[in-house]
Order: sequence, then C-alpha cells, then structure tokens
Amino acid sequence: MSGNSIGRSFVLTSFGESHGPAIGGIVDGCPPGLPLSEADLQQDLDRRKPGQSRHTTQRRESDRVQILSGVFEGVTTGAPIGLLIQNEDQRSKDYAEIAAKFRPGHADYTYTMKYGRRDYRGGGRSSARETAIRVAAGGIAKRCLQTLAGVRVRGYLSRLGPIRTAAVGEPGFDWDQVERNPFFSPVAERVAEMEAYMDALRKSGDSIGAEVTVIAEGVPPGLGEPVFDRLDADIAHALMSINAVKGVEIGAGFDCVEQKGTEHRDAMTPEGFVGNNAGGVLGGISSGQPVVARLALKPTSSVRLPGRTVDLTGQATEVITKGRHDPCVGIRATPIAEAMLALVLADHLLRHRGQNADVRPPLSPLPASAP
Amino acid sequence: MSGNSIGRSFVLTSFGESHGPAIGGIVDGCPPGLPLSEADLQQDLDRRKPGQSRHTTQRRESDRVQILSGVFEGVTTGAPIGLLIQNEDQRSKDYAEIAAKFRPGHADYTYTMKYGRRDYRGGGRSSARETAIRVAAGGIAKRCLQTLAGVRVRGYLSRLGPIRTAAVGEPGFDWDQVERNPFFSPVAERVAEMEAYMDALRKSGDSIGAEVTVIAEGVPPGLGEPVFDRLDADIAHALMSINAVKGVEIGAGFDCVEQKGTEHRDAMTPEGFVGNNAGGVLGGISSGQPVVARLALKPTSSVRLPGRTVDLTGQATEVITKGRHDPCVGIRATPIAEAMLALVLADHLLRHRGQNADVRPPLSPLPASAP
Amino acid sequence: MSGNSIGRSFVLTSFGESHGPAIGGIVDGCPPGLPLSEADLQQDLDRRKPGQSRHTTQRRESDRVQILSGVFEGVTTGAPIGLLIQNEDQRSKDYAEIAAKFRPGHADYTYTMKYGRRDYRGGGRSSARETAIRVAAGGIAKRCLQTLAGVRVRGYLSRLGPIRTAAVGEPGFDWDQVERNPFFSPVAERVAEMEAYMDALRKSGDSIGAEVTVIAEGVPPGLGEPVFDRLDADIAHALMSINAVKGVEIGAGFDCVEQKGTEHRDAMTPEGFVGNNAGGVLGGISSGQPVVARLALKPTSSVRLPGRTVDLTGQATEVITKGRHDPCVGIRATPIAEAMLALVLADHLLRHRGQNADVRPPLSPLPASAP
Amino acid sequence: MSGNSIGRSFVLTSFGESHGPAIGGIVDGCPPGLPLSEADLQQDLDRRKPGQSRHTTQRRESDRVQILSGVFEGVTTGAPIGLLIQNEDQRSKDYAEIAAKFRPGHADYTYTMKYGRRDYRGGGRSSARETAIRVAAGGIAKRCLQTLAGVRVRGYLSRLGPIRTAAVGEPGFDWDQVERNPFFSPVAERVAEMEAYMDALRKSGDSIGAEVTVIAEGVPPGLGEPVFDRLDADIAHALMSINAVKGVEIGAGFDCVEQKGTEHRDAMTPEGFVGNNAGGVLGGISSGQPVVARLALKPTSSVRLPGRTVDLTGQATEVITKGRHDPCVGIRATPIAEAMLALVLADHLLRHRGQNADVRPPLSPLPASAP
Repeated sequence: MSGNSIGRSFVLTSFGESHGPAIGGIVDGCPPGLPLSEADLQQDLDRRKPGQSRHTTQRRESDRVQILSGVFEGVTTGAPIGLLIQNEDQRSKDYAEIAAKFRPGHADYTYTMKYGRRDYRGGGRSSARETAIRVAAGGIAKRCLQTLAGVRVRGYLSRLGPIRTAAVGEPGFDWDQVERNPFFSPVAERVAEMEAYMDALRKSGDSIGAEVTVIAEGVPPGLGEPVFDRLDADIAHALMSINAVKGVEIGAGFDCVEQKGTEHRDAMTPEGFVGNNAGGVLGGISSGQPVVARLALKPTSSVRLPGRTVDLTGQATEVITKGRHDPCVGIRATPIAEAMLALVLADHLLRHRGQNADVRPPLSPLPASAP
Repeated sequence: MSGNSIGRSFVLTSFGESHGPAIGGIVDGCPPGLPLSEADLQQDLDRRKPGQSRHTTQRRESDRVQILSGVFEGVTTGAPIGLLIQNEDQRSKDYAEIAAKFRPGHADYTYTMKYGRRDYRGGGRSSARETAIRVAAGGIAKRCLQTLAGVRVRGYLSRLGPIRTAAVGEPGFDWDQVERNPFFSPVAERVAEMEAYMDALRKSGDSIGAEVTVIAEGVPPGLGEPVFDRLDADIAHALMSINAVKGVEIGAGFDCVEQKGTEHRDAMTPEGFVGNNAGGVLGGISSGQPVVARLALKPTSSVRLPGRTVDLTGQATEVITKGRHDPCVGIRATPIAEAMLALVLADHLLRHRGQNADVRPPLSPLPASAP
Repeated sequence: MSGNSIGRSFVLTSFGESHGPAIGGIVDGCPPGLPLSEADLQQDLDRRKPGQSRHTTQRRESDRVQILSGVFEGVTTGAPIGLLIQNEDQRSKDYAEIAAKFRPGHADYTYTMKYGRRDYRGGGRSSARETAIRVAAGGIAKRCLQTLAGVRVRGYLSRLGPIRTAAVGEPGFDWDQVERNPFFSPVAERVAEMEAYMDALRKSGDSIGAEVTVIAEGVPPGLGEPVFDRLDADIAHALMSINAVKGVEIGAGFDCVEQKGTEHRDAMTPEGFVGNNAGGVLGGISSGQPVVARLALKPTSSVRLPGRTVDLTGQATEVITKGRHDPCVGIRATPIAEAMLALVLADHLLRHRGQNADVRPPLSPLPASAP
Repeated sequence: MSGNSIGRSFVLTSFGESHGPAIGGIVDGCPPGLPLSEADLQQDLDRRKPGQSRHTTQRRESDRVQILSGVFEGVTTGAPIGLLIQNEDQRSKDYAEIAAKFRPGHADYTYTMKYGRRDYRGGGRSSARETAIRVAAGGIAKRCLQTLAGVRVRGYLSRLGPIRTAAVGEPGFDWDQVERNPFFSPVAERVAEMEAYMDALRKSGDSIGAEVTVIAEGVPPGLGEPVFDRLDADIAHALMSINAVKGVEIGAGFDCVEQKGTEHRDAMTPEGFVGNNAGGVLGGISSGQPVVARLALKPTSSVRLPGRTVDLTGQATEVITKGRHDPCVGIRATPIAEAMLALVLADHLLRHRGQNADVRPPLSPLPASAP
C-alpha cells in the first residue's frame, strides 16, 4: 500500500528509481508567500551530490532540480510544488550480472518477496538515489522553518567507524569546519585521520558505518501532537526511513539507561533549562531547547569482497558488487538527515499553527447575502 | 492537530487522562472472524498493571477492560472495537500543590506552552496511564498476528541501569524466566541483584533508566511500505511514542557504526540467513528473520528529591514530586513495547495482504442486472 | 480497512452497534480553551432522539452522552474527547427471525458478503443508531465554529415525499418554526399536511423519502483545500456518508444543468455577491457566502409489507420487517445533516488556521541553551 | 493544508498549473505485475483533449503523458508511478488584463482570499487543465480494475442543458454511439440537435451546464468501508472534486425523495436483484450490481458577455473573459468522471483485498534463524 508520502500538513510524496529517466516529488502544503527558487534547493543537493571527493561513489550526477509548479513570480502560491531531477549517468550494465542474485544486506530479496519482481538496475526504488528528492524537499522545509519561525537546521558527522569527532561545545568542535571537508566533520584535526582511514578501507574493498548528528535551533515550544504523533516519534520515523539507518537517539539517547532521574532531568530556571538531556522534546512536544537527534548508519553491503547468497531459484551462490558505491554511506548522509529533520519540523510547525496563519488577503471579505 | 491515532489499516485511536473517569480507545480495521474476548486482553493488562511488586508504583488499578463493540458471539465482525477501562484509584490531591509548578523533565511545561493550560492531575494526558489502552489494543494485534500469520511477539528487560541481563542465545538467557519475576528479566541470576538495586534506589529517593528488547518471530517476508512507511521506520515511530523512550535500535543498532560491511551484512544460504544484524528488516521490508528492536527508557523525573524549576509565572522555585511513581518506568515497559511492536506488525500485515483476505462469504454473489 | 474516522484536523472516530452495550466516539483535534459540557451536546441529541412524536420509531433511548476526557474544569484541553452513550432499549428478539434472511434495500447482504458474517441485531453497525455519536460530535464542532469564527449551522426539512416546504426567503419560510414541529418544517402551514400524510403512510405500512437542506452562515472565505479536499467535495462525502442518503447538491445543484453561465455565475459588487448559485463555494473554497447543501434521503426499506429476498443459503424467501422503524428516516435527519456539515467546516477551519492559533501560553518561552 | 492527494491504498497526488511548464502526478499503491504503457493512458487523454471539435476550447495541447517510474520492462513494480505532461500552448497574455480583477463564478476571489495571492494565468491551479492528470491516473486505475477484478468503467453525457439523451436500457441508448460523437451522447438522434444548440450558444457568447452519468460494471460485492469511508460517500467526494460539479447522485438519487419504500428497495431473488435504485451500493458497500452515479456540471463562468465584479482593491468593475474556453465544460467531462470513479473503485478494491493479494514470489521464503 502507498508508503511514499511523509508528513500530514507539509507532505512530501516521492517517486523514481536509480536508473529510470528521472526522480521527482511533490511538496504539498507549503505555505503561500515564501520566496523560493531552484537555486535555494541546489545548495543542499550539491552537498549531497556524489563524486565530490574520492571518498564517495564516482557516479556523476549534476542533480539539477526543476521546480515545475507552486511558485509564481518567485514566490510560493500555496499550490503543490512539483520537483524533478533527471537521471544522467546510468550504467545499467553494471547490474546485469546481479539480476538473478540477491545481494546480501540489500533489499533485493525483500523487494522480490514483496512485489514478486524488482527493478534490479542499481537497486531501483531501494537505491539511495531516491534521497536526492528528500534533500530538495528538505530545502523547501528549511526555508519554511527559517522564514516562519527562525528555525535553523544543521548537522555533522559525529562518528566515522572508530573515529569520533566531537559534540557541540566539546573541545575542537567548530560548526564552520563542517562545510570545509568532504566528511562534514566539525573537528579539523580529524579530517586527515578520516582521509587515511577511508583510503585504507577503499583498498581493502570493504565498507564502514557512521553516525550523524542533526540539530535544530530556534524551535518554538509546542510542536508535536501526543500521544502518537509526538515530535520525537515522528523524528525517529523520518530518520529511520533513510536508507541504511539502524538506530535513532533523541537527546541523551541510550545513555539515559544508566542515568539517575536527578541526573537526567533538565532543571528549569528563569534563565532557561540547565542541560539538554531531553534533546529539546518533553512529553513528545518541543520545549524550546535545541532539538538534537543522532542516527546510526550501517556500512553499505555493496563491497568488492565476495559474499555468500542465493539466486532467484534459491540455489547457493556468491556475489561481488561491482557498480560504483560509497564505501561509507554515512559520509553523504548529513544533508539527508538535515532534510528529514526539517521536513518533520515544518510539518509540525504547520500542524500547530496552520498553513495560512500569516496570510494577508489584499482586500477585506465581501459582505455575505442571505442564504 | 489530531495525533491520537496510530496505524493505517489497523488503527488505534485512544483517549483518556490519568485522573479522568476512564480511558479508552477504538481499534478500527481488525479483520472479521477473529475469536476475541475481554479475557484475551486482560492477560497483558495484568502484566503491565501497577502495584504488582514493591518495585513499581503502589497506585491500585484493576485495569479491567471492556469490549463495547465489534465482537458478536465471541468473534470479531470487522466493525470498530470500542475499548474502555474505568479509572479507580485517583488521588488527585497529591497533585494539587504542583498545579502551579512545572516538574522538570516532565511534560508540564510543554503541554502548558502548547495548549495554554493543562490537566495537572497526575500528568493528565501525558501520564503513562494512557499506555494501558495501548496494551489492550496490542492484545488484539497479537491475536491478529498469531491467527493470520503465526507471528509471536514477546520481549524482556535487557538492561536495568547498570545491570545487563542477556540477549537471546547468550548464556543464562531463558524466555521462561521472563514471566517469573517482576522485572521481565530473562536471566534468573540477575533478579536478586535487581531487587537489591531497586531497594537501595528507592531508599535514595532517586530513579533509574532501563532498556527493553522486543522480538517478533514468524514475521512473513514482505511487510513494510518503502520509501517512508518502512517497517523499521514505523517501529521506530511506535516505540519512540511510548512515554520516556529516548532511543530505538533495530538489529545491530548503533553497533553498526563500527562494523565493516563484510561483518554487518547477513549472508544468505539455502538454509537461511547467517546472522541477523539487519534485525529482520532489509530496505524497510521484513526479510522473514525475527524482527528485533531495542528501546531506551529514561529514568522518571518524578523523584522525592527536590528539583529546580519555575512556576506558572516564570519565577524560580523548587519541586518535590510526591504522588506514587515507578522508580524505574522501564520495569513495566515490556508489555507496552510488545504492544506497540504488535500494533505496527498487524498494521503492516493488513496493509500488505488486505483486511479481508481470509473472508469466505456464506453464499456466492447474486447475478448482476443491467445498469 | 479502517473507515470509521472522518476529518483530518478535527477528527471523529466512532464505534458501536445498534444492540451492543454502548456506542461511542473520539473527537481528536478540538482546540483547547473551548467551554464545553455534556449539556451542550445533549441539546442536539434530544432533537435527533427517537420517540419524540408518533411519526418516528417508538424505540426509547434517553441518549445521555458522557464526556470521558479532554475537558478539564469545564474547558477543553486539546486532548482527545471521549464520548459514550449507553444503549438502553434493545429488543434483540425482534430481529431473531431475520438473522438468516437479507432484508432488501438494507446492508444485510453487503455486510455479509464483505465480512463473511454480521451482527444482525437491529442492523448492527449499519443501523442509524450510529448517527447519535455524529450528532454529539457535531455539537462540539458547532461550538468550535461558533466560538472561533462566529459560524452558525442549521437546517430544515425541505421536502417530505411529495410535500415541499420552502427555501430561505420564499413565502412562509420561518427559521423559528423549524424547532416548533416534529418535522423540522420551516413552514407552519405544511405541518398539518405532513401529519396527515404520515398517519396515512403508517397505516399503509409503507415508508417515504425526504430532502433536507443545511446551511452554514458566517463561514469565512478561504476554507477548503483544492484540488481534492475541496470544501464542497468534503461536504458531499460527509453528507453521503449518512445512512439512506442517495444525492447531494451544493447551491444550485442539479438545476445548474439547464442554467446559462450568465445566469448561474453570481455577480460580485462592493456590497457583496448578487445571488448564491455557488452555494458559498467557488473552486472548492468558501467564498464567505452562506454554505448551502441539500441531501436526498431514501425511504427506509424496513416496512411491514412483505418483500422478496433470499436467505443465507441463497434460496428465495419473503421478509417482513417487524422491529420499530421510522416510516420516514428523513424526519430525524436534520440534526444529523447539521452535525456532518459542522464537522466538515470545523475540520477545514482548523486545517486553514491551525488548531492552536488562539492559544495564549501563561508565560513567555524560557531562553534556550546551546545544543 | 495539503489537499492534493486522493485515495488511501491507491493514491493519486497531483501538481501543476494551467500555464506552468508542466503538470504531473504520482500514483502510489498500484499493485505490481500489471502490464502498463504510456499508450494505455494516452487513449483516455485523447478523449479529454481540447480542440477535438468546434464545440470545445481551441487551446491545442498534445497532452502526451510520460511514465517516469514504477514500470520496469513494461510491467508495474509496486513502486510509485510518476506521471508528467508538458504544457505547450500557453497564451498567458490572454490573462494579463484580468490579473487585477476577480472573474465572477471563478476561483479567482477565493484563491486570493485564502492564499493572499494567485497565479492568474488561466486560473493557475484552479484550471480544468489539472484534470488531465486525473485522466492519466484514472487510466491506471481502469487497467487495475480490469485486470484484478474484471471491472469496466464507462460514462456518457446524459444531459446537455435542456437536451436529454437517455439512460441505459431506454429507447435509442447505444453504448457504441458514445465514442462516435464529440458529445459522448449515447443517442445518435440527439447529436445533430446538440450541434445546433452549441452553435447557437457559441454565437450568443454564453455557456450551458450538463449532466454526466458514469457506470461501473462487474464491481464485486464488498467494496466500501463504513461508516464514513462508504463507497458512495467516496464516490460523491471524488466526483464533487471535479471542477464545476455542483451535484452528485447515486442510483435513484433525488428521485428517491418521492419514492415509497416498497418502490425503492430492490427486491432480491436467486436470479439477482430486481432493479437498481440503490445504484450498486447498500449501506455504503458495493452489492455486485452496477455502480451508477450522475454529476451535474455548472456552465462555465468564462463567457464573452460582460459581468459585474470587483477588482483587487474591492472597487466595482466589469470583466469580459477572453482566452479560449469550453462553452460547455460538461462535454469533455465524461472521461474525467470515468477517471474519478475508477480511482475510487481501485482504491476500495485494494483497501478490501490488499495490494499484493496476487503476488507470487519466485521462491519460497528462506528459513529464519534464532533472534
């Protein structure tokens, strides 16, 4: 059943396969009156784009996004925004040989069991290619959050396999560094280490996991709809919906298991909260503190080293994934995670205050007649 | 906006405050033909019920659930199932003194900022009391899963603060032990240790976090609706929607950050998968492997030790939470987590195969006439 | 699959069968700060209540509604509102003999074919008994509309079989008359005629159809979400979801088929619209004109005269409906139609402006810390 | 808030303005394994296409639809289907002069009041241009209904202003005629009459309303989800969501107001139903009889004759609609109405039986390991 939409008031619906003619999406519910251009969205798309360094897949995509509707004279109209990105560099032949095999750790087997068939070219719908549209839509959500509520969403790579960078406020942490290296590392000192680690990893033909942290500052109190559509629950849903994610934390996350109540609860003073173990969410509703979430990304299963698997007939066989892949999908995940957090926050901002709260009609309503 | 429903095909909508006359819910989408009685649901409600041991809140609730509709002659009809549980032991006076203060780490502040007011009696809607209906509805979901697909959902306490029990297959792990102690510990040896820990904790007036693991066995391959309504994403949403949860993991969870691809990907053989780092989900779709999820529960902020906070006017003050509370909310969380996992699986089972796949009408359709 | 909820921002989910212990519902999304009591809802319930005159079913139900949650100290809190009405006067034996037969024109056959079984007592879920909860929830919607936007929803019986009353503004039309007769006729002169017609009809053992008109005044311009969730489309959905409704019109309705464009389009002047062929909706969005809708209700198929049908085995047989029924279900339909129109308008009002647009928190947000 | 999606299991989300670069949509939930090509959809698009005769707008659009995803090797995969239609013949200048005026009977005023601005080029989002995507998506729904359940959806023009054609079974009615004239008239004799009527109308510069009838044959019993998502209620919603529709009838429709119960209820015999006053729906669920619906379409307000209105500043003015318009929008409405009925039926078919009921995986599931 249809599972390609996310959000309730600010809704993204997406389509597209890795090796089809194009991928695209529709953002429905964006408030009117928002200045918006394709360039606004290109920025984040370029941050996600493959082939930016030797540490990511060498597939080349210009990832140029087109806005097909919902914007008139440079401003959103309240109508749905159609987004389109052409696929360019498709080497389908790379995948011919695995058409009849299930790559272990991939969606090949589950898609086939669910749908009875699959588009095997580059993973088809299950490819991370799909996340480009999330990033484009996330760009609209970011604009929306910034304009309507002054919310800022950003993220960084907190762990690359065994290499840990730093948390906000820790020594060496610098937001400005994040955009200055291909890893989104907030710690300059770690970059060389990561380069070396990745070079060795690539030689070995293996892959590695990573952890990304995303933070939203300026979130007003009151966002989130208990008891099920809590802000933290929807964030968990959105982040876990990203390819390769196996875990999500809010605030203290799993550390809270060993915390005492007196230690975990963030005291409140007229000067504000003391600490942020809550990660900006209490009872499923934003507290006004920064919203802090972490996600764990598994190592890609597409590696050059042979793996045991079965074929379409259930017979034992081996598979080696050629094609072009990220040895660490986490490296490009920061803009994607930011986009998902922005989509959830924009949705809840609009659920809370309404899409048209700021609309000023040009004239006062005409008088009504009798029925 | 309305956030009190969960699910798409098998939907729970709930209502009720901690100290109102009753709590209740509606399960809409339960397939017809399912044998169902109140006793079937009471079982899990009793497992969650407070006052079962000295380690949980002493509030006394019989938690008798009534089925008000949707069942005729002992069998579900396909009509919505109305559930009702009367509230009995309400000591509202316990809360009078905190009516004008925000308990730190609680939803008092966020509810007040969002709605402009709050039902301060026992946390009102934000009280864990609400989870009783989740457990009742989860019981229907479990029956549904068992009957339609042979799926079994169960869970255990994997960590109580610093005390770790064991994972399935590890030495000392025994499913039969889980129901034989007040902690849902699968390891008999740990129980005494936990008793001692909790007794000391209670004396100190503080509280502690915990980790629960839930597992679904017999899940057929094919459940989950990419790219957003993935099975793992919906599980993350459902588990994170439980009070006090700050983190969710599927399969290897955060351990995958330091795993290599060759180590993480579960090889496939005609005899089945080798390992289950995926936790039973690949590409957002069930693989047929057991679905394994873990959740981190924060320590309750309701402790006898004073905490700094502000009052309704924003002035600094102190608060001591009297009332009756669980020093470790995680202890009673196992049946709740099972219920949420069951609700998600039942929803996806019905999304995948349809609510009425098994319906056999008593007669063949009558011939149609011309328009 | 679950079909017992209506609305997106202001959502009613209902449950209950004609002869079960109780019927009930949950209103989720009602804004906080609204004064609300059971008495507020009882008013419309009493208008719909059976046995008010000899012209409706003699089933006796006090239809006392209980509010179980969402209201604290006489004011809504923003939490879901649980509604419950006990069933009292159930004569199940009346239905024993038709358990194995399908009443023609009823849902007996379709429910059985869909679900494989049915609760045959009084139509079970398909009974008009279910509409009592719609009326209770509609009462909340009316309060919401009145308080937030000054919208007034009311209706009247425009046709009873061959007897036509009058439209607003036509000679003899008087809103005050509507509540002064058992038919909700706005024309005093028609009442005696209707009494005579119904008495003769009852003697004959047959039933008759009717047409109800509902009107909402004070609807602000801007409600409705094109292109699918148009205000008129959602009104058509809500009114057609009422038992026995076979047709819905907005404004000029089917008369527009023979109208010219110059005749149909309502001219606009600084003094307001000239005419209301649009029925208050243009392009799926409210224009500020009164919203006018009409619905056609079929004659109940439950009549004392024998009808040809088949039994559970598909064999030909005859059926005579005993039990207690309305010879004209349209007579009691006015409060139900008002409720459905109010539910749609409240939903769209909140979709447009947000649930919490009026919320004033008691204190300004606490300052935020660093992440 | 987002209102550009329709359906629950088979969902169409659309975007696009009359004079933007393109219009498009996403069909999410189409079952896998369905043969599908662009040619399959082009057929209905050509039936709706403008400029087919002198009786419709002379705007020229090739309306070529592209399928961008969800189809692999000529067969649907279960992934969302992206649809795109380029806009070609845009004469925006036609609209410059009405940018500052509200055309009476149009959505100009309501869009402006709702969103604070509007894309005035050809009505922007409120233009009937949007219906082209409904027709394309409806083509997928038709294929789905035909393949999965043998359902056939078709329609005809039952009234053109004062000219009535005929109902199925009436003298002169012939399905084969429908596609042989530009009016979709099922009665050959009426065509000349209509030609003459339209020619005179065009000369006069005015427009006229129409009535369309749509019928679905072969609908299995059991479709529809009471009590709110009834099949007839969802049909009413879908048909009323079409531009210019002011009324919807199912079966006997408004005629039921004057019918007796013994007359309206369709008797049942082992040989089938006697009559179809129900229009194929009983209690909101399909009965297996043909589903019959009628819709009333208002005359377009875009006429060459001057109309009184106000401008953006609220001042009185006059407007004459130039541009190219259909003097009777009902003429091209038949394929659109068919599409909407097909979308609703496909959605309910999948809600009832599940999207993947027919899926046959190529291999049996691999054995599961321990958790």
